[in-house]
Amino acid sequence: MSEPHVPEPRLDRPAKLLLRALAGERLERPPVWLMRQAGRYLPEYRATREKAGSFLDLCYRPDLAAEVTLQPLRRFSLDAAILFADLPLLAQALGQALDYRDGEGPILTPPIRSMADLDRLSLEHLPGRLAPVYETVRLLARDLPSATTLIGFAGAPWTLATYMIQGGGSADQAAAKRFAFADPRGFGRLIDLLVQAIIDYLDAQVTAGAEVVQLFDSWAGALPERLFRQWCIAPTQAIVRQLKARHPHLPIIGFPRGAGLLYQDYAEQTGVDGVSIDSTVPLSFAAERLQRRVCVQGNLDPQLLVVGGEAMRRETTRILEVLGHGPFIFNLGHGIVPDTPPAHVASLVEQVLAWRA
Amino acid sequence: MSEPHVPEPRLDRPAKLLLRALAGERLERPPVWLMRQAGRYLPEYRATREKAGSFLDLCYRPDLAAEVTLQPLRRFSLDAAILFADLPLLAQALGQALDYRDGEGPILTPPIRSMADLDRLSLEHLPGRLAPVYETVRLLARDLPSATTLIGFAGAPWTLATYMIQGGGSADQAAAKRFAFADPRGFGRLIDLLVQAIIDYLDAQVTAGAEVVQLFDSWAGALPERLFRQWCIAPTQAIVRQLKARHPHLPIIGFPRGAGLLYQDYAEQTGVDGVSIDSTVPLSFAAERLQRRVCVQGNLDPQLLVVGGEAMRRETTRILEVLGHGPFIFNLGHGIVPDTPPAHVASLVEQVLAWRA
Repeated sequence: MSEPHVPEPRLDRPAKLLLRALAGERLERPPVWLMRQAGRYLPEYRATREKAGSFLDLCYRPDLAAEVTLQPLRRFSLDAAILFADLPLLAQALGQALDYRDGEGPILTPPIRSMADLDRLSLEHLPGRLAPVYETVRLLARDLPSATTLIGFAGAPWTLATYMIQGGGSADQAAAKRFAFADPRGFGRLIDLLVQAIIDYLDAQVTAGAEVVQLFDSWAGALPERLFRQWCIAPTQAIVRQLKARHPHLPIIGFPRGAGLLYQDYAEQTGVDGVSIDSTVPLSFAAERLQRRVCVQGNLDPQLLVVGGEAMRRETTRILEVLGHGPFIFNLGHGIVPDTPPAHVASLVEQVLAWRA
Repeated sequence: MSEPHVPEPRLDRPAKLLLRALAGERLERPPVWLMRQAGRYLPEYRATREKAGSFLDLCYRPDLAAEVTLQPLRRFSLDAAILFADLPLLAQALGQALDYRDGEGPILTPPIRSMADLDRLSLEHLPGRLAPVYETVRLLARDLPSATTLIGFAGAPWTLATYMIQGGGSADQAAAKRFAFADPRGFGRLIDLLVQAIIDYLDAQVTAGAEVVQLFDSWAGALPERLFRQWCIAPTQAIVRQLKARHPHLPIIGFPRGAGLLYQDYAEQTGVDGVSIDSTVPLSFAAERLQRRVCVQGNLDPQLLVVGGEAMRRETTRILEVLGHGPFIFNLGHGIVPDTPPAHVASLVEQVLAWRA
């Protein structure tokens, strides 16, 4: 379909498939990993989770967080592991109280609704509070198989802001949108703080051993065009620029989930090396408009991984045939859901590993 | 920006602004109406709702349903009224039990999960069960001011299927997607039944006096490309074709909310006269790619209507300037939310009425 962009010649040509794909190489077969590959669909995850007590204990105990990160690699021949942690940890490190109630997702208190709430947040305690996460990264860098790439991650500023302003998850991100519409200056202060926090957080993950980082903008799809440019593209640009100033060869993947008609501007303007696409993105669009500029990652529907069988196999073939000839990382369009049969994951990974461009 | 398509000369040139916009005319100022303009944000709606007892009683009592349809027209100079009803009524008419629990949305039982569930559905009782809705349309056709256009509506097949299979609303339409992936033939039978039901339902609304109909595909944005083509575009084509065979001059608006990169194919392939766009659609895209083929309707963010003031005024001006020079209907990107101040609606409508191309 499209020509991949030609990577600059590098003396330190990386051997790992994921790094080669992110450097713009067209590979014989694409690397594969799956968002939320460590999670509730695995019985061994549920056992470790139970042992940890609370979900936060699981996130903050480096031995257990490293253990659940490694679990899927023992079952499946995946090309990457992603640090086990959760987006709202960064809000907690900035000063909000964080709690998880069973089946309800994160609760952040107090919700950020005023300048006074904002003034109580601070970057000061980040290194100390997030030290256990960096320790997890160090354990993983030590224990991962040598061909496996270690991915660090953070929530993107807009998505973190939706949690912090709402005080948790929400169906329509209404509170954050209202804040952004009503007080762009105050909202900009929160975003600026988050940009700095995310840079520090990812910088420390890289120093601890992460080889790639991914920015999850899970609620980018809620943003009208102008807000998308202002609060998704621009802050991502700032993060990419400053992270690359510190780590010039660091590959960065962006995932503006639901960006629809704005994926192309995101790919062209943010400076990311890879763009993760959700399952609604037409493959021909991704091949023709995105793959010229960036490595594309995606986009099997997680519900198709639940269904499995011939339907999954056919769609996987289609994705490989359309995107596998340019720089590409096979993944889902969103995270694995809890009732996914692990056997379906096994056959998906086998199919990708067996495919040849 | 773009040239509007030139309408064929008609002897019966319609006088109503909304019909002229849908016929492809570029107008001095666009017609305006707002999705969910009859609803909980109005104290008089809440009073009528209380008087009705249950939400279903409100939907099925023609005097009360007509009353709440007319309420926003007494406050605001809107160019259209949309029949007050709710999408799941059609599922009830097909044979599912429908109930509303406070603040929880519709509950449909039993959920459609097997061929046996599907076999229990039937078109047979549609005319009798939906007779009160048609009576509401007749009352409205009689009582509406002469410049106001009466819009009928139905949920589109995919969106209705998500409710029927899930047994109510859902965050990710998982049950319907799994059904569609796992058993396309069985799912196709449900969609075919819904296509016929929707045609009968809208045909009867038109016979009762509706001048325009709108198809709400509220969950179109959940569909991966292939499913979008199969379960959103194709059934909409069938509905449009058969409705136009019965009513050649009937204007039809489609609203595939969240269609993103697939809005253009929807506009070009379904045969609709107007496409309603959600708030994430970039205005330049709508002007350049959609307005050439269809009348565009949209797309102020409903949260901006809650915020009001200068932010709302500025974005409204931007929408008018970019889209107001082609065939256009001013509307929101989604329905009015309950905590919207009616005063903001008043100033929005005044601003649109005062604008000139």
